[in-house]
Amino acid sequence: MEKSPGKKLRDMIAKGRIVQTMASHSPLSARLAEEAGFDAIWASGFELSALHGLADVSLITMTQHLESTRAIVSTVHQPVVADIDTGFGNAVNVIHCVRHYEQAGVAALVIEDKTFPKFTSLAAGARQELVSIDCFQGKIGAVAATRKDPDLVIIARTEALIAGLGQSEALRRADAYVEAGADMILIHSRQPEPSEVEAFVQSWSRDIPLVIVPTAYPTLNRQRARELGKIGMIIYGNHAVRAAVTGMQKVFARIIKDGGIQEVNKDIVPVEEIFRLQDMTMVKVWEGLFLR
Amino acid sequence: MEKSPGKKLRDMIAKGRIVQTMASHSPLSARLAEEAGFDAIWASGFELSALHGLADVSLITMTQHLESTRAIVSTVHQPVVADIDTGFGNAVNVIHCVRHYEQAGVAALVIEDKTFPKFTSLAAGARQELVSIDCFQGKIGAVAATRKDPDLVIIARTEALIAGLGQSEALRRADAYVEAGADMILIHSRQPEPSEVEAFVQSWSRDIPLVIVPTAYPTLNRQRARELGKIGMIIYGNHAVRAAVTGMQKVFARIIKDGGIQEVNKDIVPVEEIFRLQDMTMVKVWEGLFLR
Amino acid sequence: MEKSPGKKLRDMIAKGRIVQTMASHSPLSARLAEEAGFDAIWASGFELSALHGLADVSLITMTQHLESTRAIVSTVHQPVVADIDTGFGNAVNVIHCVRHYEQAGVAALVIEDKTFPKFTSLAAGARQELVSIDCFQGKIGAVAATRKDPDLVIIARTEALIAGLGQSEALRRADAYVEAGADMILIHSRQPEPSEVEAFVQSWSRDIPLVIVPTAYPTLNRQRARELGKIGMIIYGNHAVRAAVTGMQKVFARIIKDGGIQEVNKDIVPVEEIFRLQDMTMVKVWEGLFLR
Amino acid sequence: MEKSPGKKLRDMIAKGRIVQTMASHSPLSARLAEEAGFDAIWASGFELSALHGLADVSLITMTQHLESTRAIVSTVHQPVVADIDTGFGNAVNVIHCVRHYEQAGVAALVIEDKTFPKFTSLAAGARQELVSIDCFQGKIGAVAATRKDPDLVIIARTEALIAGLGQSEALRRADAYVEAGADMILIHSRQPEPSEVEAFVQSWSRDIPLVIVPTAYPTLNRQRARELGKIGMIIYGNHAVRAAVTGMQKVFARIIKDGGIQEVNKDIVPVEEIFRLQDMTMVKVWEGLFLR
Repeated sequence: MEKSPGKKLRDMIAKGRIVQTMASHSPLSARLAEEAGFDAIWASGFELSALHGLADVSLITMTQHLESTRAIVSTVHQPVVADIDTGFGNAVNVIHCVRHYEQAGVAALVIEDKTFPKFTSLAAGARQELVSIDCFQGKIGAVAATRKDPDLVIIARTEALIAGLGQSEALRRADAYVEAGADMILIHSRQPEPSEVEAFVQSWSRDIPLVIVPTAYPTLNRQRARELGKIGMIIYGNHAVRAAVTGMQKVFARIIKDGGIQEVNKDIVPVEEIFRLQDMTMVKVWEGLFLR
Repeated sequence: MEKSPGKKLRDMIAKGRIVQTMASHSPLSARLAEEAGFDAIWASGFELSALHGLADVSLITMTQHLESTRAIVSTVHQPVVADIDTGFGNAVNVIHCVRHYEQAGVAALVIEDKTFPKFTSLAAGARQELVSIDCFQGKIGAVAATRKDPDLVIIARTEALIAGLGQSEALRRADAYVEAGADMILIHSRQPEPSEVEAFVQSWSRDIPLVIVPTAYPTLNRQRARELGKIGMIIYGNHAVRAAVTGMQKVFARIIKDGGIQEVNKDIVPVEEIFRLQDMTMVKVWEGLFLR
Repeated sequence: MEKSPGKKLRDMIAKGRIVQTMASHSPLSARLAEEAGFDAIWASGFELSALHGLADVSLITMTQHLESTRAIVSTVHQPVVADIDTGFGNAVNVIHCVRHYEQAGVAALVIEDKTFPKFTSLAAGARQELVSIDCFQGKIGAVAATRKDPDLVIIARTEALIAGLGQSEALRRADAYVEAGADMILIHSRQPEPSEVEAFVQSWSRDIPLVIVPTAYPTLNRQRARELGKIGMIIYGNHAVRAAVTGMQKVFARIIKDGGIQEVNKDIVPVEEIFRLQDMTMVKVWEGLFLR
Repeated sequence: MEKSPGKKLRDMIAKGRIVQTMASHSPLSARLAEEAGFDAIWASGFELSALHGLADVSLITMTQHLESTRAIVSTVHQPVVADIDTGFGNAVNVIHCVRHYEQAGVAALVIEDKTFPKFTSLAAGARQELVSIDCFQGKIGAVAATRKDPDLVIIARTEALIAGLGQSEALRRADAYVEAGADMILIHSRQPEPSEVEAFVQSWSRDIPLVIVPTAYPTLNRQRARELGKIGMIIYGNHAVRAAVTGMQKVFARIIKDGGIQEVNKDIVPVEEIFRLQDMTMVKVWEGLFLR
């Protein structure tokens, strides 16, 4: 019998691997991440919001995120870590999520302790409100009690540092979330230096692995994470969409400047590379076998 | 009273502009195309298929394409040209399309004379089957008779050259499609040189503008199109997704190689640029005005 | 130029008509309501939740409700009144709603002053929490400021009586909501007698019409509403799904009992009646005209 | 390890049960069918089309049908038999279906030998065109080769009688479809008497169970099916939507006539019955356990 997605992810981490997880906004970007060698895929709310041209403030619905996540899961072989934000509401919404995301085949759910609707974490000067510890323990407990697969990984994300509540509150929350059933703790920070997160890691004494998202402090890389210890996963939280935007802006500007595609053609992958990513060879095989 | 999207597009062409239309697979890519200066957006079936990791062989449904098109229309100000492939079936399916795409606010519909399910046009050695002229005239007539806005632009796309049927068949079809009500003719070719398409353009004697998609023959740029005359629109049919893939492949490879984002960070747009594309400033304004 | 949906609805009410609005959970049920002679259609969150087998506690997403509402609008000619609950979050979510529901072609938006996620109003012993008056004024102001059509009708629904806060709070809220821009006030009650709602109506002194939902007190019918005055709309909030369930339960039980459809066949509409509701005659006309 | 949905359905039939399968257009109607005692649920294309107010001529997309089917599967415990019409295109579209419907948890797929786009089978005087036997064998082979669970039941539906091609062609096709991998054969007829279908059943000599849809000849009930033998499943193909329409038409007419709901209230299920069908008790339990 095949291992469940959650079990696969747990086994990676149990073997001491720091799981490198790339953000994704589509099956295509997930496939590229898998091909590049990432260990897992982050079904990112931020990236999906950006794809829709929408701010990451709980405008994308669970329907949209779930559909995108399901499509990603059915495209890649790597475990998919679903970013369900606050759970799209209260503990009952969270239970609704668990049923649907688990059916979709995700390996892990990341749920954060912000109020709904959330405001994206990395924005300067934005409101960042947290629910009470008790309330969030209820949400974690709801996941733990309703997942069908006990190996589905519950990642509790605390925004205490983002909200400016300080280390001791962050630690207190992380601790309480583990008590409530979290399998991993995601500690988020938007300081431009890793010191805040590193201090948290160094104070962490539980035998529960941590997850980091080093967008704001890129020097906290895999090597440094290994030195720190206790870190089980690094999420590169927005690099797929930033890379895609960078690529498109350059090419679009060039086409407008050149009045055509004659120059830019050599700088981008050929259309045949897209065919390959679309598994067109397989379609031709199927047509050969079954089309009459 | 505001001009309809179809009227806007017609006016651009009437003024002698060669409308440069960039392919899109999402609201985000459409916004980037608009910002770069393209005149119109191509809601591409090929790009949307690729985004889903699927071959462009009529697997993406009308539901998926319509939803994506509607999201694009609500994001950009430029006219959106919808790629409805074969119309997702017969003339009745086409009527179903017209109602829904027109409600979504598109400026033009491109419908092609291939059989359903289609096979993407640029693939080497693939089946390329066309419906009869009479059948396709029925489809064009169905659009013409059921559009609410008489300015909705009907672009009939002939795949006669793609299917290897030669110039005279291509011209015969184009002619018949105009008789049936087409407002523009898209002539497609996959020859690596523009000579095939140029020959068609030179033989075209109707006062109906042509549309070209120069993926395979990039030297047929805007300057050359102007020299040829008769061309009202150039569609860059797959350059958004090719640019995005190029961007992601480079960045992903680098992150894996570096074991982190410390190096790649400077080569991609900052997260604040994504915020800008998400209109986050507007969200903060709204919060200031209405959130209490 | 055609009247906007909001204008049509406003005109009905201005002429002194008490708009009878039937709940709907699908284009089919909306068409049946239109054929029966109802003046408007209620795109009900409760009915749509029930169709999905889900409790009406903010599990159905805006995506699902919007898609259903758009399908209803494109099926009927009568004005559609959209039940957007709390607006799916805060004032920013409300603005997101306005853009999409207005594009979908609704005549009115009903927004209620409960917290998100809501609990359905008619359930005994359930939590019923209201947002502050100031907060809800922000939401109403957000609709008023961002609708494109100034005739889009804003119906503010107060749950003050449902929450047990009493008449004076209900009146205070209704008043404040009119100040913030509401075009109509929906006053909801779950008392089994109409006295609570009637008392409210009698105390209402503004020149702003009221909306009632007499599920719990069915004797408050159109005749009685006319006597009371000030009532511009009656919403029959759940009678489509209750009628459908009643019909299916009877027929299903009978088929199981009979071991077949031989007896029940005469008690239900023939399949040809479904064909009629599907506009199949029109499809045959189209096939005749355009299918070759 | 739990039995797969396909295995459950196979076991029912292997035990000699004539599986009574009720049509469904929503999770709600499926739940009612389950409660009434039906053995399986028919995720019907006809009923879903009717719910959308659309003719059953391949306008509903795979996206819409799959989403509805997935919601039904997640609501009921009984096996779900998915009506995928022609497979939404050719053999490649069929493979796309298999992957997605199997992931959704269906027990069986019914695929029919009509051309795409189809015309609903029971309509008088409509085109009814069949693909070649060879072509349809390719489609069946595609399902057989790509299902992950070998117990997923493949039901091949021949429309030979519907198309007026006669008994011998129907038998020839049924035979060929079994050769290609079909697990059951659905024989459809629209004669108002069961003699045509009964003749087919009596001529059937394979050890492969048959499926019937007795809409047009309701006297062919379970008792008669048992006498005939060889029949493994009866599908009541449109009785949910016909019952729902009957219920709504009566109630709507009454409300209009009465000018209110005061009379009709006693003839329909109370709103509390809808609460029960929405599992609202469970929501209250969850709120009690997890909402803080």
